[in-house]
Amino acid sequence: MPDTTRIQGPLGIIAGRGPLPCVLAEAAIAREIPLHIVGIRGEAREDIERFPHTWIKWGEIGKMFRALEKNGCGDLVIIGGVNRPDFGNIRFDLGAIKTVPFILSLGQGGDDHVLSRIVQFFEDEGYRVHGAGDVAPELLAGEGSLSAKGPSVEEQADIHIAMKVVRALGPLDVGQAAVVAKGHVIAVEAAEGTDAMLQRCADLRRLGRTRGARSGVLVKAPKPGQEERVDMPTIGPETVRKAAAAGLAGIAVAAGHVLMAERAATIEAANEAKLFLVGEPWDDNGAREPSNLD
Amino acid sequence: MPDTTRIQGPLGIIAGRGPLPCVLAEAAIAREIPLHIVGIRGEAREDIERFPHTWIKWGEIGKMFRALEKNGCGDLVIIGGVNRPDFGNIRFDLGAIKTVPFILSLGQGGDDHVLSRIVQFFEDEGYRVHGAGDVAPELLAGEGSLSAKGPSVEEQADIHIAMKVVRALGPLDVGQAAVVAKGHVIAVEAAEGTDAMLQRCADLRRLGRTRGARSGVLVKAPKPGQEERVDMPTIGPETVRKAAAAGLAGIAVAAGHVLMAERAATIEAANEAKLFLVGEPWDDNGAREPSNLD
Repeated sequence: MPDTTRIQGPLGIIAGRGPLPCVLAEAAIAREIPLHIVGIRGEAREDIERFPHTWIKWGEIGKMFRALEKNGCGDLVIIGGVNRPDFGNIRFDLGAIKTVPFILSLGQGGDDHVLSRIVQFFEDEGYRVHGAGDVAPELLAGEGSLSAKGPSVEEQADIHIAMKVVRALGPLDVGQAAVVAKGHVIAVEAAEGTDAMLQRCADLRRLGRTRGARSGVLVKAPKPGQEERVDMPTIGPETVRKAAAAGLAGIAVAAGHVLMAERAATIEAANEAKLFLVGEPWDDNGAREPSNLD
Repeated sequence: MPDTTRIQGPLGIIAGRGPLPCVLAEAAIAREIPLHIVGIRGEAREDIERFPHTWIKWGEIGKMFRALEKNGCGDLVIIGGVNRPDFGNIRFDLGAIKTVPFILSLGQGGDDHVLSRIVQFFEDEGYRVHGAGDVAPELLAGEGSLSAKGPSVEEQADIHIAMKVVRALGPLDVGQAAVVAKGHVIAVEAAEGTDAMLQRCADLRRLGRTRGARSGVLVKAPKPGQEERVDMPTIGPETVRKAAAAGLAGIAVAAGHVLMAERAATIEAANEAKLFLVGEPWDDNGAREPSNLD
């Protein structure tokens, strides 16, 4: 579950792609937390201009730190995905010099390693880095049934197997998602991302390699030890529509550990497609709590 | 390692797709083992007609048993993949009646479950079912470097991670293969098969989601407890060419547990593409033997 860290002063939001940065900004304002958004050009939506903000380009590290400092932001949330930048074409500003050893250290290892290093980098500079769920717990998927429909006993068994797959791979820094139908593991996510994995499930279904009518579940959960402050699994209406297109019966997420920023739209999409959407208990060690299926 | 079961009389070969049935028949003839091939129409190559044979259609179970009986085949090898048949369009012969409870039992569970049940079905009828490697150990990939090139230390570390991925998922009846590049797990195989997984790696490379020039390894290994007599992982020249197209540096297989029927062509393809091809020690419990990387 999210920790209850209090934000001590103005909140800095380093904004990447998607709706999350603005959703978080609204949640902060609702709590009367002052904020300043630093938007990465080509990644963050123009929408951030509704809030106090500064635009930076990749490499303008000095400009970023000046904006945070000027606005008194000692607390940070880094949110919204970014495309892997083309390091060869980045023009670094003077303030970026101190980041050179850091950037050189990013070349090796899995995603989780890179993201942990990014958090470490900001912490070394004296910032307190929070997850979006620490600031606004309502952005996390909660426990229990979120949709009108719930999983059947058979679907609950599929959820259980998919959770085991994700849990088995977590220590190897792999994926956050798997698809299981009728006891059969259909797909495991690695570098391709959830959307590509769901597309593959849709293709397999067309080829008749999966059996029966609508069946199967998508499970999303964090990797054990995953840096959830900057890399929490997310789910939105588009995930639901793609799961429906892949012929799945529903989606289960690790409660308290998956961001669902567009909550109403996500639940509406599930109900519209007649998919179930459920939050499963998940303890902080990444292990699923015992259920009657264990 | 392959067991040394002796074939006691004429060998029955139930033949599915690909070159394996004929390669096995030739290996049996070289050992002066008499044989009879039962080819599944639409699956086995016409090539089997070079050997004593009977063609059957899906559902002609009675005809299959009569052919095996008439030719005195108490020993069986079931070899070559099949497409999942469209059960609704199969016309069962009279001899198939006893298979109805068996077929109804196949609906649930992963591939491994289905294949174990098939072996059980033939054993219940009194047949001795062997793996191709039991009859002809030279069809299995051996230990050590098979290609001119060997893996670098970094590539050896990638092999180690990919072996761990396959090992972690085995108990969940998932996949037999994974791709790892520079410590990063790129892809994990589930229902889509190795070719589709390699295609995905090629796509990810084009999108720039994997880094650097030629790098990464494909690892193929059996699942622990996998029914290796009917479902051993296979590798051939086409696998090598697809791994090269995906920009990988090489391939590692579990020595003694992966079929390499077209041995010369597979090694030639590896040398031509400058890929390494190596057999890694793998014990019978599915665990990799300790190496200096553990």
